[in-house]
This record gives sequence, C-alpha cells and structure tokens, in this order.
Amino acid sequence: MSTQTQIDQLKEAAARQAVALAQDGMVLGLGTGSTAAFAVAALGERVQAGLKIVGVPTSERTAQQARSLGIPLATLEEQPRLDLTIDGADEVEVESLALVKGLGGALLREKIVAAASTRLVIVVDAGKLVDRLGSRSPLPVEVVPFGWRTTQTRLQNMGLRPTLRLGTDGQAYLSDGGHYILDCATGPIADPAGLEIALATTIGVVESGLFIGMASQVIVARPEGIQTLQAGGEHP
Amino acid sequence: MSTQTQIDQLKEAAARQAVALAQDGMVLGLGTGSTAAFAVAALGERVQAGLKIVGVPTSERTAQQARSLGIPLATLEEQPRLDLTIDGADEVEVESLALVKGLGGALLREKIVAAASTRLVIVVDAGKLVDRLGSRSPLPVEVVPFGWRTTQTRLQNMGLRPTLRLGTDGQAYLSDGGHYILDCATGPIADPAGLEIALATTIGVVESGLFIGMASQVIVARPEGIQTLQAGGEHP
Repeated sequence: MSTQTQIDQLKEAAARQAVALAQDGMVLGLGTGSTAAFAVAALGERVQAGLKIVGVPTSERTAQQARSLGIPLATLEEQPRLDLTIDGADEVEVESLALVKGLGGALLREKIVAAASTRLVIVVDAGKLVDRLGSRSPLPVEVVPFGWRTTQTRLQNMGLRPTLRLGTDGQAYLSDGGHYILDCATGPIADPAGLEIALATTIGVVESGLFIGMASQVIVARPEGIQTLQAGGEHP
Repeated sequence: MSTQTQIDQLKEAAARQAVALAQDGMVLGLGTGSTAAFAVAALGERVQAGLKIVGVPTSERTAQQARSLGIPLATLEEQPRLDLTIDGADEVEVESLALVKGLGGALLREKIVAAASTRLVIVVDAGKLVDRLGSRSPLPVEVVPFGWRTTQTRLQNMGLRPTLRLGTDGQAYLSDGGHYILDCATGPIADPAGLEIALATTIGVVESGLFIGMASQVIVARPEGIQTLQAGGEHP
C-alpha cells in the first residue's frame, strides 16, 4: 500500500470526506495543489448533482479547474466571509495542527482566504504528519523581489538556509502576487509561533508558509482508513 | 517665516547638510519625496564637482531624477550593503526618532533600502516633529491587492480607520511593488513598536510605514537654523 496510485486513491477518499462538509448556500475557499485538486473535482461532482455553493479560488490554476467543472466562482471582494476552506498542506504538526504550506506556490492567497474563513479543513496523506514542523519540508517564505538578496541575508542571519525558488524556465519563480519565494531549510522548528512573528517582522518578507492556529480540522488519508484530527481536541 | 518658498529654502539647507555626510567611495540610499528630492539635487551638484559615490534609488521617480543629474546608480542586488541613506519622513517622534513614512508611496522600498544601510539620516522641516506618532499623519500600510477588503477589515478590528489610497485616475494607487496602500487614521500611537508587530503579523499586510529604531540622525530645518537630533543621544 504505498504506490503513488494507492496514495492518490486514499487522498481522493479523504478529499471526498472534506467535501461532504459543504452545504447549500455556503461560500467555500478552494485550495491549491494536488490534494486540493481532488477536493475541487469532488466538489464539481456535487455541484453538477445540484449543490448550490460559491467558490473562492486561491490560485489561477484552481480557478481554471473549478470553471471547467461548472463551479460558480467569486472573488474575496464579492464574498469577504467564507464558511469553509478546503486545502492541502506540506506538513501538519500532529499536536497543534500547525501547518507548513506553500510548496504549491500559492501560500499568500491560501493564507488570506483561510483567514477569511470560519473553518479551514486540511486534507493530507499520513506522510505529511510530523512531530515538529520543518522536519521534512522546507519552509516557503514569500518575499518582495526588490532587494530580495538583502532579505535572504536577514533570513540567513536568523539561522535559516534560504534558497531562491526557480521556475521551469530557470528564472526566479513568480507567485500569483508577483513575489519571489525563498525555500528555507529550518530543521525541526521548536517554536513555530515565535518563528512566525520573527519572519513577519523581517523587512522584505510578505508572508511565511507557517499557518498557526488556523486549521480547525485535518483529514488524514491512511492506508488503514481515514482519520480526523480536531483542533484543540482529542485525536481518536 | 512660513511661506512654502521659505520652508523649501530651509529644507534645501537641511538636505545640503545631510549630503555633506557623503564621502568618496560610499554607497548611498536615495530616498523619495519632496525633501529627498532636494538631497538628490544637492548630491548631483557634488557628483558633478567630482564626488565618487554610487546611489541606490528607492523609487522609479528618484532613479529618474538621479540619472538626469549624472549620479551613478546601482541596484540592491549589485550593492547589498549601503553606507548611508538620506530620506524624508512624514512624522518624527522627537524622543525616540521613530518615524512614519509612506505618504510619498515608496515606503516598502525605502524600508528595504534603509534596512540595508549602516546609517539612515532623515531630513524634515520642524512641522514634522511630534510628541507621538499618528498625531498628524495617517499611517500608510502597504497591503496585498488580493483580498484587500478582508485585510482592511482586520485593520478596522484593530481600531485603525483604514482608507484605500487612490491614484490621480481615481483607481486604487499601485505602489512600485504592485501593492495597494491603506492610509490608517490612528490618533496618537502610544506603543509604536507594539503596533508595528501587530501590523507585521496581520495577514495581507506587506509592510507598514512605521520605521522604528532605524533613524540614526534627524536633521531638522527650523526657521532659526538647522537642528540635529541623534538616536539615543542628547538633543542640543
């Protein structure tokens, strides 16, 4: 039980469970990435079956997929309050449900949409669960292109090892917001909340991939079945 | 002694005093705004007289002015460490030399350049000195256009009164970095450092116009003469 196809089947099942939370009349945030794409596909099926919702996409890519499935879309300006956002994550700290996001390149919009949502439900496979964030994934940090090397130096001086993300063309990857992304090797992060404040107050940083206190529920695709982790609750 | 021409003459004299700090071989940050423009003009005269420096501009506007005066320019990528930046400010808190900047629309680049500089020298007329920041000027806060209304709501919930800055065309003003600016009526700010952290950690905020602990010297144009305020020092 570990081929990519099997993992994808598990993620799809978990994504369906997240999408089962959608109800008529809701405004839904639509995440970005391979797992979020399963959720958007499942949501498209429910919309085609008659579900009445409006989606707010977190990337151009997700907007395209949703449009192709007939999901009605709105902007955050039109729908500033969301009921539920469904998204993936790169790492989930089991104890706190703190997240690292941003490998998909959409962390800024994902964070803004999540912050506007009453509930953020995260879908991941079990391989994303960690005891400490930073154990496996680099931490993406979105920065202003102007003077980005001076920002990189400031992050280096904080003990991070930031590398400029490149696009498929070998040039600096540009986010939807027109920023660069520095992927930071951190090692296990002992104090995510402290690091989040340190990054936020670093001049040149737009936003980090740390999502702390935001996820209300994490739905985990495991070979042996689907597990749900609740924020601040017991994990059966 | 209070017509605009007289104030401009005083500002020009103060700007000349700041530019007198420039020495051969220095890398200089060039600010943006009406007072900074006097400094760039004075620097142009010194360059034409033989001073060897390189300038790093904080806006396209300043770059144009400097080029027209024959001042050699570089980017922060080429010159990541600056000796001295000369800029204006909208408000200066006399006791701490904390600043509000950004009415000129270039706060993000000004802050990144200032952060890369060993010294930041601010030139203002006496009308910019205040006991508490926020007494006269709104506080400009640069925000991501995506979902800016949700960011505005978060700032409102912090007790600020944010208004979207408009350009001369009546559309949202776009900064050099492609962001919007929310001008926030704050009233006197009791704890600028605390507010700076609260703003920096607000999702959707790129940078605020609060410059705390950054100015090393403030040169004040007064009708009765030029006064210099030193960070952490006595103010004669």
